[in-house]
Amino acid sequence: MTSQVETVTAAILVIGDEILSGRTKDKNIGYIADFLGNLGIDLREVRIVPDEEAEIVGAVNALRARYTYVFTTGGIGPTHDDITADSIAKAFGVGIEEDPRAIKLMLERYKLEDLNPARRRMARIPVGADLVENPVSKAPGFKLGNVIVMAGVPSVMHAMLDNAAKLLQTGTRMLFETIEAEGLPEGAYAAALGSIAEAHAAAVSIGSYPLFQDGLFRNRIVVRGRTQDAVAAAAGAVRGMLAELRARQNAL
Amino acid sequence: MTSQVETVTAAILVIGDEILSGRTKDKNIGYIADFLGNLGIDLREVRIVPDEEAEIVGAVNALRARYTYVFTTGGIGPTHDDITADSIAKAFGVGIEEDPRAIKLMLERYKLEDLNPARRRMARIPVGADLVENPVSKAPGFKLGNVIVMAGVPSVMHAMLDNAAKLLQTGTRMLFETIEAEGLPEGAYAAALGSIAEAHAAAVSIGSYPLFQDGLFRNRIVVRGRTQDAVAAAAGAVRGMLAELRARQNAL
Repeated sequence: MTSQVETVTAAILVIGDEILSGRTKDKNIGYIADFLGNLGIDLREVRIVPDEEAEIVGAVNALRARYTYVFTTGGIGPTHDDITADSIAKAFGVGIEEDPRAIKLMLERYKLEDLNPARRRMARIPVGADLVENPVSKAPGFKLGNVIVMAGVPSVMHAMLDNAAKLLQTGTRMLFETIEAEGLPEGAYAAALGSIAEAHAAAVSIGSYPLFQDGLFRNRIVVRGRTQDAVAAAAGAVRGMLAELRARQNAL
Repeated sequence: MTSQVETVTAAILVIGDEILSGRTKDKNIGYIADFLGNLGIDLREVRIVPDEEAEIVGAVNALRARYTYVFTTGGIGPTHDDITADSIAKAFGVGIEEDPRAIKLMLERYKLEDLNPARRRMARIPVGADLVENPVSKAPGFKLGNVIVMAGVPSVMHAMLDNAAKLLQTGTRMLFETIEAEGLPEGAYAAALGSIAEAHAAAVSIGSYPLFQDGLFRNRIVVRGRTQDAVAAAAGAVRGMLAELRARQNAL
């Protein structure tokens, strides 16, 4: 990567016993990965941890020290297993209180008499956090320091992510070019691809992703970089290499 | 949980730039979670890291110290970005060599003259590892200490996981009971559910998983435990509580 290009990094922390048990299949990681990619934010790590305070605190502190942003999903509802907000406050060493701004937002949906203690729990926000509004079900997420705390329900998380995006510093969007290596097994082009990757390492990264379907190789080579020229140059080299390899195969 | 019940724990480490970029959506985590659940192995953590040696080494060493087993996926093919085997050897501080057992397996698929240096790279196995056979495409995974290294291609990973299972200590399978809380929002039952969870905390854990679809609440409460009696007792208490709540609603 060239040094003028700014890199903004991120991690995702999924909080959820139900994902670890296999009973719920995560759909949030891929969505957030795409979303951050479009903002030019590099997703560098993902962790999934259970609904346990020590696990959440440990992961939040490890990740927020390493990346520009940490996005958490899950554990901000009204039930006893929703311990994310308290865990985040603990990780930052700040207090947590019922937030009048959150109550105000929730009153757009609930009558005052329906705001029982469990629902009021959703208005508990660590001191110093900015709220992240949730037009779907009103109880907000929040951003404390570089940590953005969102719901686990996909439709609610999507809405929160849209609102959180306004609070984020963004980077230069990563550009991709995909080259189909159809009909060629990875082992046939691996050495030549490695040389190309090395020659272009300053400006792009190159990955080879094997797909093996119905006995056929449908491998894909992906060139990633932050300038169009660099990606085009490396992709051209890969295409030339594959063409040469196919010509040699056909000549046999 | 009762003390006679043995707990076997696990983590998954997904190695893959392509998952972090969002271009490939992971399908392995949910599959492995289900598979381990059926073996009575508790999945406790998942991490996704990029194809970078320092990241892989750091994550492997953190996870293998904490859990009975670590399952890795991805990065064991023939291309330059396939650095998992070398990273695992480095994490364990052991050497890595071309393994004659792996070459023998690969010769079931490749002619000797087609085993070019890139393909031979797939036979590089850390010293002291057991092979995990791969009937799909032959190049094996391996098990070193408590770390099981598998391919990222789902069909290949599934076959390796079947073979790896023979090498594993298994636990007492976790039992689940799911109670539909249809029509009741979480906020209505959260306090009562919290009391039930506390009363049964020695033998089961209880989670509440909100689903909000088409403006309707379709929440699910899941009771998890390792004995049928404990799960049935807690699930009965939850059902009773929900019935009482619905009766009270209807009486209004």
